[in-house]
Amino acid sequence: MSDDVLTTVSSTGGPRRRRVSVKALPQHNRVHNRAVVLQALFHQGAMSRADLARESGLTRPTVSVLVAELEADGIVAEIGQREDVRVGKPATLVEINPDAFHMIVLDLSSADRFVGAVVNLRGEVVDRADLAIDGAVREDAIARVIRLAERLSALTTQRILGIGVGSPGIVDDQGVVREALHLEWFDLPLRQRLADYFHLPVLVANDANVAALGVHTFREVPGLSLMVVTIEHGVGVGLIIGGSLVEGEQFSAGEIGHVTVGADGEGALCTCGRRGCLETVIGARYLSDRIAGLDEGARGEVLRDAGRALGVVAAPVISALNLNEVVLSGPSDLLDGPFRDAAVDTIKARTLSVVGEGLSLRTTQGDGDLVLLGGASLVLQAELGVS
Amino acid sequence: MSDDVLTTVSSTGGPRRRRVSVKALPQHNRVHNRAVVLQALFHQGAMSRADLARESGLTRPTVSVLVAELEADGIVAEIGQREDVRVGKPATLVEINPDAFHMIVLDLSSADRFVGAVVNLRGEVVDRADLAIDGAVREDAIARVIRLAERLSALTTQRILGIGVGSPGIVDDQGVVREALHLEWFDLPLRQRLADYFHLPVLVANDANVAALGVHTFREVPGLSLMVVTIEHGVGVGLIIGGSLVEGEQFSAGEIGHVTVGADGEGALCTCGRRGCLETVIGARYLSDRIAGLDEGARGEVLRDAGRALGVVAAPVISALNLNEVVLSGPSDLLDGPFRDAAVDTIKARTLSVVGEGLSLRTTQGDGDLVLLGGASLVLQAELGVS
Repeated sequence: MSDDVLTTVSSTGGPRRRRVSVKALPQHNRVHNRAVVLQALFHQGAMSRADLARESGLTRPTVSVLVAELEADGIVAEIGQREDVRVGKPATLVEINPDAFHMIVLDLSSADRFVGAVVNLRGEVVDRADLAIDGAVREDAIARVIRLAERLSALTTQRILGIGVGSPGIVDDQGVVREALHLEWFDLPLRQRLADYFHLPVLVANDANVAALGVHTFREVPGLSLMVVTIEHGVGVGLIIGGSLVEGEQFSAGEIGHVTVGADGEGALCTCGRRGCLETVIGARYLSDRIAGLDEGARGEVLRDAGRALGVVAAPVISALNLNEVVLSGPSDLLDGPFRDAAVDTIKARTLSVVGEGLSLRTTQGDGDLVLLGGASLVLQAELGVS
Repeated sequence: MSDDVLTTVSSTGGPRRRRVSVKALPQHNRVHNRAVVLQALFHQGAMSRADLARESGLTRPTVSVLVAELEADGIVAEIGQREDVRVGKPATLVEINPDAFHMIVLDLSSADRFVGAVVNLRGEVVDRADLAIDGAVREDAIARVIRLAERLSALTTQRILGIGVGSPGIVDDQGVVREALHLEWFDLPLRQRLADYFHLPVLVANDANVAALGVHTFREVPGLSLMVVTIEHGVGVGLIIGGSLVEGEQFSAGEIGHVTVGADGEGALCTCGRRGCLETVIGARYLSDRIAGLDEGARGEVLRDAGRALGVVAAPVISALNLNEVVLSGPSDLLDGPFRDAAVDTIKARTLSVVGEGLSLRTTQGDGDLVLLGGASLVLQAELGVS
């Protein structure tokens, strides 16, 4: 079959033709330079204008103009002079004003409740709200998302920078939910619907991907690559490689919940119609059902078996990418303990020692805000160029 | 254990601090602009200066100056006028002169022979040479690498742009071979050794990674992500995600040859000391030994079982990354047929339908030059900014 053969462009093997993706550098790119200044302030905290020039590679006058603009917008404020200076004029420090804007962030990943928050520019939660889903699907479910966002917007009097949403299912780069089974959303332009309603910038992405962004931007994880495994209603993975989110060719990266564990055709029937999917072994609903009423020992063994199953599926991914940082996000009572320990042991037993030695596999220990923080990260990146 | 807990920077959850990686855009960056022009010519072929200005976003005068410089260097040449122009002055076309420079490329991945070639700027093989390894290890093996490179450099009278090497084992970003077991290379600064000897730019990377670059740069594969599985002496994977090679935190990305297949502690003993590694099931040596003397039917079943094992290990990786393009590189008699078919069937059976539907898994059908072409890609990228 010619489809299965790696074809060469020409018999002499010339380079394949493709569009040039690199463009010449635009000169004096103000938007870019503004983002460079904000990025430095966001990650380094308070700095003098001289510090900013050094960090950014911009000239002192350019930095001064940009800082003046940001001050006029209220995003940056002077916070006094540096105390530790010994000679010369003490430098005036500037800092991002965390409450210059608030953001509305929504986590739609839970089976029971839509969860939301108002967060400031530092990713600090200012206020919270949530709304029961009550089995709502299609337009009813959308109406509840809108109602929750309305409630949240009533909780702040600050300017709103945008709305960031982590949605279950497959979400494309236009914020269209291609498929979210339990909400019966198919090709739903959620980003556009919310933007039309609220007249604000709206960003929508897959919940596991958004959780990975939340960890990457707001939590202390070394390196530029990490994997967040979300174990909730569904099971998914968010992957950041070299600082960038992996979306996948059909926007389906991270869909490991329906990878088969064990032999083909065996295991429990899954909502996807096949048998033995990872989700049926480690999904929070399945696990909770299975340990209900068991004594401590039997409970531990069920959780250990589930952790092993995750380890078997994760080992090839961790090996292929040589990932060091893996974070398990989900119910603390299920994941902290035998589940996590068995996952670590299994991954180490089934990979090259260099891979296992570098591995840090942690749970969030009940930190349930990763999708919310990731929603903030989406908005910060889109609106201020900060990542 | 605090090590296993995802820590927050501060109790209020501020953004984590890290070095600013984005710098301000340098103005009038000549090196960058030169690379933009070469990149356009490399991928689009012959163009007029006006075409180049349009493609690159550079001004006409800038393009003219850069083209004049590249002509003076002999890298670019005028090849006549466009024939299809109907009105106005016919445009003069310029093109990369493929023989302006040659490159020396080495593929050290085989267990028996070091293989090399002289290639031109289009990645066309100008001449070839190889050298038996004869079980040489350590300095003896290095001496053979140098001898092969010397032979190749004697085969061309063109200027040599650089030396590109695909090495087995774990290779870091300084071209140090951290570990290549069968050659007994440990922390060998191969790049530096060759650079000191030849006084040329030298690039060294892992063979599977280099093969992936070779496919990405010189073969017709759609999209910006792909996985090359090399099934030779060892088993490895080269991954390109969003146009960039994945190196991994310990430069060990792609080391799936030592991921366990089947139950822990079962299967054949591997060179790494553990049992049941993928390499012992699908490695070319093991497979050849196992099918020797078998009749057609028994042979097919062994190859199908091996293909299934690859499918089980590859399914989580392909799902996590939502990869469409997978290329199997290795002996045609082993991989073309039942092995490939079983791998495809297994991956499709064990992943979500959206993942399986997008999948194209091809063999190279005997195209043994991927590592050599990838070596050329390393040099082109480093020396001319072309990728």
